[in-house]
Amino acid sequence: MRKKIIVIGATGTLGSAVASELEAADYEVVRASRKGSPRVELEDLSTLDALFAAVSAVDGVVCVAASVGLSPLESLSDTDVVLAMKGKLFGQVALLQRAAKHLRDGGSITLTGGTFKSYIPGSSLGALVNAGLEGFIRSVAREMPRGIRANLVSPGWIRETLLAMGQDGSEGTPASEVARAYLEAVTGKMQGQVLIP
Amino acid sequence: MRKKIIVIGATGTLGSAVASELEAADYEVVRASRKGSPRVELEDLSTLDALFAAVSAVDGVVCVAASVGLSPLESLSDTDVVLAMKGKLFGQVALLQRAAKHLRDGGSITLTGGTFKSYIPGSSLGALVNAGLEGFIRSVAREMPRGIRANLVSPGWIRETLLAMGQDGSEGTPASEVARAYLEAVTGKMQGQVLIP
Repeated sequence: MRKKIIVIGATGTLGSAVASELEAADYEVVRASRKGSPRVELEDLSTLDALFAAVSAVDGVVCVAASVGLSPLESLSDTDVVLAMKGKLFGQVALLQRAAKHLRDGGSITLTGGTFKSYIPGSSLGALVNAGLEGFIRSVAREMPRGIRANLVSPGWIRETLLAMGQDGSEGTPASEVARAYLEAVTGKMQGQVLIP
Repeated sequence: MRKKIIVIGATGTLGSAVASELEAADYEVVRASRKGSPRVELEDLSTLDALFAAVSAVDGVVCVAASVGLSPLESLSDTDVVLAMKGKLFGQVALLQRAAKHLRDGGSITLTGGTFKSYIPGSSLGALVNAGLEGFIRSVAREMPRGIRANLVSPGWIRETLLAMGQDGSEGTPASEVARAYLEAVTGKMQGQVLIP
């Protein structure tokens, strides 16, 4: 029986590359996204509950949906600060908690962090979230039940995204290359690792 | 004129050592704490506003008040997860935002992270917060106005705390030694650094 992997954010540039890599490696892929079906929005945790209620016998979940906006910290209210962390930080922690309960034995959870190769103005909350996810995954991997593995992929800029923004793509990594780091996290034996493609 | 530093959490083992080190180095120290005066509770951001309204001409703020409890992630609800990060993560981000507005030119902000030398069960949110604060301070230092510096001290176990818990103190660092890292952050020229005493 083919193993079943849910990819959250499967309609994006990177998410569709990840889904394709997994299918090429003979996984059954359930493509979830903000506007698709199953519909998953990391800011709305009830959509995560609905996801695991609707899709059963899941061997892995990969989340590539998450991002944090850029804003100078001084422009943010206390409420803005918490909201900025909602999807990528709290949403992915909540996803891991649910996946740890629902995945099949030996399953895998792969979350997305991020790497800023050079300083980007307004990225302090993004840096907080990315670094926080690294510390989190290294530690929480020790608590995973039933042989479930938890890892984090921390990509830098995706080449296709830079090109779509009208920028020089040479600073970026092709989506297909980044997608292979996710494939490694799903197929490998690594536990509590941070992969930087 | 002596420089004025607010120490938040000044009644604790480490906080009182930090306050003493600063006084020995001829700083004027305003000792703030959860039950003292000025009263500061990192979980209640209005106490931070009240602090900066009540104390003026401040050259630096040092926060040693913050901690995250230990709980296996699977025992925590979505609300628990956010609450666990309230004081140490959101409270210190909010403190930095306010200090960046209120401190005198060239002032310093010193926050507290933490280092787990070995794995401690139930520490995944603590690891998230500590790592997140490291990423945050390295990035947000670039946004500091008027020569204000922002740094993080990430202590491991304090020897006195271990002894008070009836444990072997030899794994811990004496509070006075950890306090000197805070003194360095206040008196030095470092910016966006993580100090591990």
